[in-house]
Amino acid sequence: MTQKGLILFAHGARDPRWAAPFQRLQKSIKESAPDQVVGLAFLEFMNPSLTGLAEQMINDGCAELVVTPIFLGQGGHVLRDLPEMVAQLCARFPAVEIRIADAVGENAMVLHAIRDYCLSTVQLP
Amino acid sequence: MTQKGLILFAHGARDPRWAAPFQRLQKSIKESAPDQVVGLAFLEFMNPSLTGLAEQMINDGCAELVVTPIFLGQGGHVLRDLPEMVAQLCARFPAVEIRIADAVGENAMVLHAIRDYCLSTVQLP
Repeated sequence: MTQKGLILFAHGARDPRWAAPFQRLQKSIKESAPDQVVGLAFLEFMNPSLTGLAEQMINDGCAELVVTPIFLGQGGHVLRDLPEMVAQLCARFPAVEIRIADAVGENAMVLHAIRDYCLSTVQLP
Repeated sequence: MTQKGLILFAHGARDPRWAAPFQRLQKSIKESAPDQVVGLAFLEFMNPSLTGLAEQMINDGCAELVVTPIFLGQGGHVLRDLPEMVAQLCARFPAVEIRIADAVGENAMVLHAIRDYCLSTVQLP
């Protein structure tokens, strides 16, 4: 069986506090699925980059990578920049299968959880 | 009872497709809670602005507003720009109570839903 790695792909920001929920997400995935290889990469301002993390995971033995955009909205970053970066990785590593998943904002269960949270914010006393 | 309005505050982007999940979220909230006044405002690139939407909701009778950042990470936009905008609104409308909720990425149930979605993306055949 080939090793399949999961890359959480987030935007990044200048403020270091920005990374906290994404790091909590990575930790939560590791706790739920200890055998799942999971890394966190950023588009800009923070490290590692997607390319750097993908190289490392491939060197560590991943023969498949799934890149899941931890973005609610899909704009130029997800729809244009990310496919270009993945196409370059595919050209460099033709033996590795690299797939881009839908952004988290496209998932109905995620949106339901956000809806419930938003409603709770107006129901506070 | 005073009317309490919910403002979903998102980043905005040049690509019009970016707004879709936020519009679905607003629609889902309206369906779940038909009596809840809920608007969607953007920091940049898209309309309405937070200030424009808040003015309109106050003119329409809201005496309380809750601004919920539909941001996963909290960086300068949520931690610095948003409080400044809300402080200006509070100064202009002293009779209105305006509160900022935690960003959605701070909510454990939202993060659990994102975790489950991310794990599903590597479990696909």
